[in-house]
Amino acid sequence: MTLEGRFDEDAGVVRVGADARQRYHDARGYGYPLEGNEIALAPVEAAHLLYRGDLEAVVDDGDRLAFRDLLAREPGTDFGVRFLVYADLRSRGFYLSPAAEPWVTDPPDGDFAVFPRGKGPGDGEVAYALRVIGERTDIPAAALEESVLAVVDEESEITYFDVNPREPTGSSATIDSVRGVDADLLADRVVVWEPPADLYETAFYGQPLEGREYDRPTLQCSLLEAAHLAERGVLDLESSVVRERGRAVEGERFDRRLRVYETLRGRGVVPKTGYKFGADFRTYADVDSVDNLGHSELLIRVLSGDHVFEPRDLALDVRLAHGVRKTMVFALVDGESVEWWSLERLTP
Amino acid sequence: MTLEGRFDEDAGVVRVGADARQRYHDARGYGYPLEGNEIALAPVEAAHLLYRGDLEAVVDDGDRLAFRDLLAREPGTDFGVRFLVYADLRSRGFYLSPAAEPWVTDPPDGDFAVFPRGKGPGDGEVAYALRVIGERTDIPAAALEESVLAVVDEESEITYFDVNPREPTGSSATIDSVRGVDADLLADRVVVWEPPADLYETAFYGQPLEGREYDRPTLQCSLLEAAHLAERGVLDLESSVVRERGRAVEGERFDRRLRVYETLRGRGVVPKTGYKFGADFRTYADVDSVDNLGHSELLIRVLSGDHVFEPRDLALDVRLAHGVRKTMVFALVDGESVEWWSLERLTP
Repeated sequence: MTLEGRFDEDAGVVRVGADARQRYHDARGYGYPLEGNEIALAPVEAAHLLYRGDLEAVVDDGDRLAFRDLLAREPGTDFGVRFLVYADLRSRGFYLSPAAEPWVTDPPDGDFAVFPRGKGPGDGEVAYALRVIGERTDIPAAALEESVLAVVDEESEITYFDVNPREPTGSSATIDSVRGVDADLLADRVVVWEPPADLYETAFYGQPLEGREYDRPTLQCSLLEAAHLAERGVLDLESSVVRERGRAVEGERFDRRLRVYETLRGRGVVPKTGYKFGADFRTYADVDSVDNLGHSELLIRVLSGDHVFEPRDLALDVRLAHGVRKTMVFALVDGESVEWWSLERLTP
Repeated sequence: MTLEGRFDEDAGVVRVGADARQRYHDARGYGYPLEGNEIALAPVEAAHLLYRGDLEAVVDDGDRLAFRDLLAREPGTDFGVRFLVYADLRSRGFYLSPAAEPWVTDPPDGDFAVFPRGKGPGDGEVAYALRVIGERTDIPAAALEESVLAVVDEESEITYFDVNPREPTGSSATIDSVRGVDADLLADRVVVWEPPADLYETAFYGQPLEGREYDRPTLQCSLLEAAHLAERGVLDLESSVVRERGRAVEGERFDRRLRVYETLRGRGVVPKTGYKFGADFRTYADVDSVDNLGHSELLIRVLSGDHVFEPRDLALDVRLAHGVRKTMVFALVDGESVEWWSLERLTP
């Protein structure tokens, strides 16, 4: 016997009686129990049962709603995408519930609470909070949370991203014992004509210019590296002049990148340009010598704290990082503070 | 005997006499001949000869300039990066000249004219115009030209991009004989419950929703596809209502994307979402049946005609496209008109 549900407008749920409790709640993790034998289903759960033919209809104030009608009825802009993700995770064999009481005790922030494989709503263990958006919905950087983000694209394909706070740390060498090294400030870079060997070879500042018919390899440094080194008196340049040049080249982006650069160096991480990967930095966590250099581990994009992401750009950054076996990290700069978030693709 | 040059402020060139003409101009393609035995060198050419030790110094108003001094002396913001690119192409065995008279007759727009491998300035054949920028210099989309773009990053590594106008064309099937198909407009997509088979299978509109216990596969269409189909009366929806929904979701980006979508369809090209590649569209040029689908050939990013690129984002888009064996195309929309540019990585 197929069951029917009844829409309860006040509570915003679909109530089902008969043996729904045992068939849908106990056995298959839908909804939550009400008094008597009834259960309450979130609209997305009811839609899924309709979709699968487990519910025959949902009665709403005299109208008999089929799946199609329930889909078109729901107010709010994200019912369709939430349904698609709910259906996708169900088809992958996971239990998930709306991230709300009384489906879940002490629910996480998000659209759904997803349970570990093999566990259900009653087992009291949430694997992760899940947020669902369409590919054309903006995401303010300030709204990033530790969660999984499901992005539903225009042909209803779903991409999952694992979003985590990610503090870069490292153990790289610093350059303390050198002062007053001669350098020339050019329009958008700095040239160090007779650098002490350790500057590049141990502390990995700059890049040697090739092809010189001289004994000591000339180094060129970025304006960021030079501003940092000038501030510490390592280079014989006024750091304020270097910073001014940086701002002339790229405006306030320079100050944000410098804040991130200095924070990373302070943590023993070496940042170099990420240009070829479309990022601001590629970073090396444990540099003791340029001869022993492994691959950089992170790609970092520096953004203002009030940045708003288009999901399409997240997909791009994460996919490229994945393709070169690095992790994508976004550094959100708000004045002096930096917040770090890693995004990685996830297959649930 | 090493030669010296003499800076001619008025002409902005470095003049060299003795046997410079035969050694540097005739034999190695530097500069242009003056009366007598002298040649004139652009500062970047003189810097290269100093760098290689072929010129001992450049005398400037009593001062003897070495390479270092010439580099630091030059006004303008791009001498350093132009030098680096000049040196790179020379080291790869190419001849190149400033894109100006009298180095080159009828010079192209750009910083340099690069000659085909094995040919020099005197052979009268330019392979391409070359423009040079640093990675932190913005590029207005309106300034794109058929040329090679050399981007010098913060550690003086150079990436070359081939920039070409690129009109997409195709031969894909259209859907002409169908009218008034029933469809529901959801918040950010359209569902077609009983689609005629050709809509998807031949003309490749929409995407079937999986898992239905029905005979006919339900199709979901993007708002763009639906606006296009509604406009033609294929779907029984008001196209103005669909467009309004599109704008509610993503503002004026919707109208730009719709213009590009309709232009592509008009040319027999099938655009589908490019979300997973971080693009607006992936396109198929010759679709006759969904069973025979090859790989999409282009990734298209839709931008306003007044967009300003950061070179870092060009690197990202082009690198990702290359990694998935597709070509990156930028569609610049200005009202009704669309301008198409492809960017591909180039190894000179």
